[in-house]
Amino acid sequence: MKRTLVSDITNNLGKTVKVAGWVQNKRDHGKMVFIDLGDRSGILQVVGKGNLSVLKPEDVVEITGLVKNRPQKDVNDKIATGRIELEAQDLNVLSKAEELPFDMAADNLNVELPTLLDWRALSLRHPKVKAIFKVQETIIQGFREILKQDGYTEIQVPTIVPTATEGGAEIFKIKYYDKDAFLAQSPQLYKQIMVGVFERVFTLAHAYRAEPSVTTRHLSEYLSLDVEMGFVESFQEIMEEVERVVRYIFQKLNKERIVELKLFSATTPPLPVKIPQLKMREAQQIIFERTGRDNRQEPDLEPEDEKEICRYALGKYGSELIFITHYPTKKRPFYTFPDPQDPEYTCSFDLLGRGLEWVTGGQRINDYQQLLENVKKRGNKPADFELYLQAFRFGMPPEGGFAIGAERVTMQILGLNNLREASLFPRDMERIDQRLSAIKSKKKPKKDEKKKI
Amino acid sequence: MKRTLVSDITNNLGKTVKVAGWVQNKRDHGKMVFIDLGDRSGILQVVGKGNLSVLKPEDVVEITGLVKNRPQKDVNDKIATGRIELEAQDLNVLSKAEELPFDMAADNLNVELPTLLDWRALSLRHPKVKAIFKVQETIIQGFREILKQDGYTEIQVPTIVPTATEGGAEIFKIKYYDKDAFLAQSPQLYKQIMVGVFERVFTLAHAYRAEPSVTTRHLSEYLSLDVEMGFVESFQEIMEEVERVVRYIFQKLNKERIVELKLFSATTPPLPVKIPQLKMREAQQIIFERTGRDNRQEPDLEPEDEKEICRYALGKYGSELIFITHYPTKKRPFYTFPDPQDPEYTCSFDLLGRGLEWVTGGQRINDYQQLLENVKKRGNKPADFELYLQAFRFGMPPEGGFAIGAERVTMQILGLNNLREASLFPRDMERIDQRLSAIKSKKKPKKDEKKKI
Repeated sequence: MKRTLVSDITNNLGKTVKVAGWVQNKRDHGKMVFIDLGDRSGILQVVGKGNLSVLKPEDVVEITGLVKNRPQKDVNDKIATGRIELEAQDLNVLSKAEELPFDMAADNLNVELPTLLDWRALSLRHPKVKAIFKVQETIIQGFREILKQDGYTEIQVPTIVPTATEGGAEIFKIKYYDKDAFLAQSPQLYKQIMVGVFERVFTLAHAYRAEPSVTTRHLSEYLSLDVEMGFVESFQEIMEEVERVVRYIFQKLNKERIVELKLFSATTPPLPVKIPQLKMREAQQIIFERTGRDNRQEPDLEPEDEKEICRYALGKYGSELIFITHYPTKKRPFYTFPDPQDPEYTCSFDLLGRGLEWVTGGQRINDYQQLLENVKKRGNKPADFELYLQAFRFGMPPEGGFAIGAERVTMQILGLNNLREASLFPRDMERIDQRLSAIKSKKKPKKDEKKKI
Repeated sequence: MKRTLVSDITNNLGKTVKVAGWVQNKRDHGKMVFIDLGDRSGILQVVGKGNLSVLKPEDVVEITGLVKNRPQKDVNDKIATGRIELEAQDLNVLSKAEELPFDMAADNLNVELPTLLDWRALSLRHPKVKAIFKVQETIIQGFREILKQDGYTEIQVPTIVPTATEGGAEIFKIKYYDKDAFLAQSPQLYKQIMVGVFERVFTLAHAYRAEPSVTTRHLSEYLSLDVEMGFVESFQEIMEEVERVVRYIFQKLNKERIVELKLFSATTPPLPVKIPQLKMREAQQIIFERTGRDNRQEPDLEPEDEKEICRYALGKYGSELIFITHYPTKKRPFYTFPDPQDPEYTCSFDLLGRGLEWVTGGQRINDYQQLLENVKKRGNKPADFELYLQAFRFGMPPEGGFAIGAERVTMQILGLNNLREASLFPRDMERIDQRLSAIKSKKKPKKDEKKKI
C-alpha cells in the first residue's frame, strides 16, 4: 500500500490507508493508546490498542488503519485533521529513537541555548524551531521572486577569494594548495562586476566574518541576500528598491506563514506609506536630545543608538523600520560613493529594524580612476583588485546595491533572542556543531552508542 | 526623462525616448553612424550623426531620440527590434571604456581559455558567454521549482565544517580563530540531518574539493544541487526523482532558453520513456565486449569508460543519459546503503550524460548502529560525527538522495569544452581570478591606470 500524507487524510474518510512519520506524543490510557503522528504535511491522531504502547517520541513508524470521524467530545479544531483520527490496525516500526534529553512535546523547548545547539539534530525537529526555518525559507523565496519579476538575473559567485576585500582582520584564511586564500566577507566585488554583464543581479551568498566576539548578533558564517543594480538615477532609487523587496517579503509571510508567525505571536513590522529616513548625524542629534547620550562625534551608531532611534521612528512615524543614511566616508568601504554635497559623508545607508541593522547598502563609485585612487588611499594594492577594477575599465554605469542579512531578518521578525537561533547550524568562535573546546580536548571518543541523558 | 528599456521600444514608435546601455558595435559611415546599443533586455540600432563617432565598444551611454521604422532594406528580423531604430538626438556618455583587448562583437570570442579568464570581467559580457549563465540560472530555478511543487523544504547549510567527511586529502583547511576547520566537500551530512526535520529537503550548496589535478572536469569550488528524501520505499524511487527533476529542467530550458540554446546549436539530451540503467559490472562487461578494454575488476568507471557507455546507451536506447548503479561498497562513502542481495555493492548510482557524470546519489544507511559501525570501520572517530550520528539516534526513516553538479550539467547541455567556462569565476589549482603564480610573484603592482592591450 502506498503512503498517504497526513494532509490528504481528510479525503480518505472511511478508507484504510497507510501513514508514516514520527511519534510526537503518546497518551497511554491502558486499553486505549493515542499517538500524535507527524509527517511533513501535518499531525494526525492515531488511536490503538496496547501494541502502540511500545512507541516512544521520535520513533519512526508506518501505521495502517481506518480513517474515522472523532467522537464529538474529542474534536480539536486547532489542527487541520482535528475532526478525524486513524484507527490503527497494523504497526511497523521503521526506526527506534533513544530516550529524549528533553521534552519535545512541550509548546516551548525549555532549554538553554548551548543545550539547544548541542542537540541540534533533535531540537530542530521541535515545531517551533522548525517554524523559524519555514519563515526563513519564505523570506529567501520572496527575495528571489520579487527580483525575478523586476528583470534581475540570479548569479552564483565564489566564496574562495584571493584577498581581503572589506578590511583586514575579520577574515578567515584558507590553505589553498600551496598558497594562501581567504573566505569572502561578502559577494560585493563580484556582484558589482556582474552589473557590467546583466545590469541587475542578485545572489544568495555565504559570507564569513572572523568576529572575535561572541555577541547575540553575529555569526561567523551567515547568509547574505545581495542585490546590485546598474543605471540607478539616484541614491534614493536604491532605497526604494530595498523597501519594495522588504514589503514583498512581509506580504508573502503574511500570506504563507500565518501559522508560523502565530507560534511566535509575531507580526511583520508595521510600516507607514514610506519608510522614514534620517542622516546619521541627525539621528545622533535626536538621540542626544532624547537621552542626553552624546555620540554626535562618533563615526557610527552604537547598538544602543540603533535601539533608541528605532523607538523614535516607531513613536514619530509608526514605523518599525528606519533608514539611516550618510555614514562617514572613513567608516565605509573604498567603493562607497561620496556625497557630492559633502564628501566627508557617503551615499550609503543601513536599514534598521526593531533595534538592529537588517540591510546595508549604497551607491558605488563607478568611475575607474576614482576607484583606483580610493584603493590606493586605503593602502591596498591595485593588483589585488585586478579583476574587479577591470570591470570599471570597460564601461560601468552608475550603480548601487544592498545586502540583507537573512538570519537577522528572520530573528527580528520572529523576535528571537539570539541570531544563532535563526541559523540551522550556527558557526561562531566557540562552536562548529560541537563546542570547539570539546573537539580539541583530544579526549577519547565518548561511548556514543549508549549515551543517555 | 525616465529610461525606456530596449524591450519596450517597439511600443514607443513615433515617440521620443531615453535609452541607456553599452555600445556593442559601431558602423561609421562618415555622415551616418550606426550604434548597436545593448541593455539587459535587448539590442537596439541607434542612428546618428558625427557626434556618435566618438563612441567605442563598451562605452556606457544614455541616448535620447525618436523611435522610427527602419527603411525596408535595413529590416533585420533576427532581433526583436529589427524593424525599428532610434534616431539619436542627445548623447550622454556615462562611462568611457578603454580599448578592448579582443573583438567583443564577433559571434564567437576567439580567445584561449587563459585569456578568457584573465579578462573575465569583460569576457562575461559577450552574448555567448552571458548565455551560458542564463542557461545555468534556468537550470537552478528549474531544480527549485519542481522540488517546491513536490513538498520539499529549501534549507541553507554551512560550508565551514569541523572534520573531513568524505575522505581525506582533497579538503581545504581553514584557520578558524585559534583552531582548525575545513571547507565542506558536500552538504551531505547536513541534508541527511534535515530529513529528520522536514523529510524532504533540497539545498544549493557550494562544495569544495582540493583536487590536485587540473582537468577539464574539475573545479575547486562548485555548485551542488542537493536533494535528500525520507520515507523512500526503494532505491529505484530515488532514481525516479532524479529523472523527474532532470526532465523538468530540460522542459524549462526548451521553453525559456530557446535563444541561448540556439547560440550553441545545443539541444537538451534526447530521452526515451525511461532513462536506462546498468549495474557498474554490467557496464564494464559491455565495454569489454565493445572495445576489448578489460576494466572488469576496476572499482570504478574510468573517464574513457563513461564516454563509451554513453555511446552504447545512445545506440541501444536512444538515450544520452544513463544510470550506472551498484558501485562497490569500498569506493562509496561510509553512509551508503549496501545492497541486501550483495553487500559488496551498494544501492548507489551515478547519472552519466554525454560521457560525463552529472548526478551522484543513492540510498543511505538509516540505522544508527550500522552507521556507527561503518564510521569506525573506515577508521573515523564517532566523536567527529557526533551531530550527524545524533540525528540517527532519534528516529530516521529509510532515506536517500542525490547531488547534481550545476556546472557539469550546464557544460554538457551546451557542449562546452571545459568546466571552467560554466563557472562565472572558476577556482582551480592555478587560479583565483588572477593566476596564482602572478599573485605570489611579489612584483610591484602593474600600472593599472594606463594598461592597454
